[in-house]
Amino acid sequence: MKKIAEPTVRRLSLYLRFLEDFEKAGRSTISSGELARSGGTTSAQVRKDLSFFGSFGKRGIGYSTHDLTAHIREILGLDRVWHVVIVGAGRIGSAMAGYYGLRERGFHVVAIFDADPRRVGQALDDLTIADVRHLEADVRRLHAHIAVLAVPSDQAQGVAARLAKAGVRAILDFSTAPLTLPEHVTVRRMNVPLELEALSHALAAR
Amino acid sequence: MKKIAEPTVRRLSLYLRFLEDFEKAGRSTISSGELARSGGTTSAQVRKDLSFFGSFGKRGIGYSTHDLTAHIREILGLDRVWHVVIVGAGRIGSAMAGYYGLRERGFHVVAIFDADPRRVGQALDDLTIADVRHLEADVRRLHAHIAVLAVPSDQAQGVAARLAKAGVRAILDFSTAPLTLPEHVTVRRMNVPLELEALSHALAAR
Repeated sequence: MKKIAEPTVRRLSLYLRFLEDFEKAGRSTISSGELARSGGTTSAQVRKDLSFFGSFGKRGIGYSTHDLTAHIREILGLDRVWHVVIVGAGRIGSAMAGYYGLRERGFHVVAIFDADPRRVGQALDDLTIADVRHLEADVRRLHAHIAVLAVPSDQAQGVAARLAKAGVRAILDFSTAPLTLPEHVTVRRMNVPLELEALSHALAAR
Repeated sequence: MKKIAEPTVRRLSLYLRFLEDFEKAGRSTISSGELARSGGTTSAQVRKDLSFFGSFGKRGIGYSTHDLTAHIREILGLDRVWHVVIVGAGRIGSAMAGYYGLRERGFHVVAIFDADPRRVGQALDDLTIADVRHLEADVRRLHAHIAVLAVPSDQAQGVAARLAKAGVRAILDFSTAPLTLPEHVTVRRMNVPLELEALSHALAAR
């Protein structure tokens, strides 16, 4: 399967949510127009997005909700289980450990790490906070695919490099430092200060 | 001041961080090349980004670190104090209340709200969790500019509409539901499941 452009992936995630709602409501087919309205886009865009992976729709009938759901789940890699480790058991890391609905999408948090000896060994939900000194060994043992990086920004590069070396190829990064990592590691960022600055710019620019 | 395109705003936020580091290190001038290297972009892009708001650089000398820092801070609306309210005192909301470094950038969290009677009245850092029933009155009284929305997705639209009605024009939204709000309300989203799905797609597509 080939990699799809980022904005398309984002729309597929949104379509999936609407499809799941439609499926729950007992709807067996859905039109590109309905998907477009839900996603705030156009029918043409929906058809273009979905045409990437073959043709599903039937003219005048629409898409099979069930088939389209299954196909998008496959494209998004949601047809399997991903092992997720969290590094940093502060407030953000703890929030991620208990994030509602991740497990049912196949994202299983298998470990959480911290450097603070007062935190290591403490229980967090059904996990025990592990010592970040054992990061590499634990990542390999647990076959972690994805890491959530929730450490102070001045430690982010060091931890990210260790994760990459241990075989992690996908990082969700809450730090604000720039990361330099091998090409094959995909990083998505959740940068709170940057988003707030985009908001303060919008307010200031009126 | 006119509103600047989103990718430019994002780069300005990044430049600002490097400029602050340069300033701390006692550097009085900085070249577009240095800023470009820090931001993973080109000198031409830096000069273009900065030319939006007049000319600062001197050929062969570069930009005054101090002047450029002050100017970017002004453009990003960081030359003043913004009152931030958080709605939802669960893990994400609590993490936001204690987010390190926001206050020094001028983002003052002035209130946190929840609907759960077991949470209302509890202390959280130096705040007391307020009842979301009083949201509109408190938002007006506290002159809140920005809201962080950290409520369950099925409540997000309702709370966001109340915030907008009470005068909030900027929302940082952690929910995953689509929001329909008046044009003048700027929304920035922190969508954890969507980012994880972008990562799982990248892993699955290899």
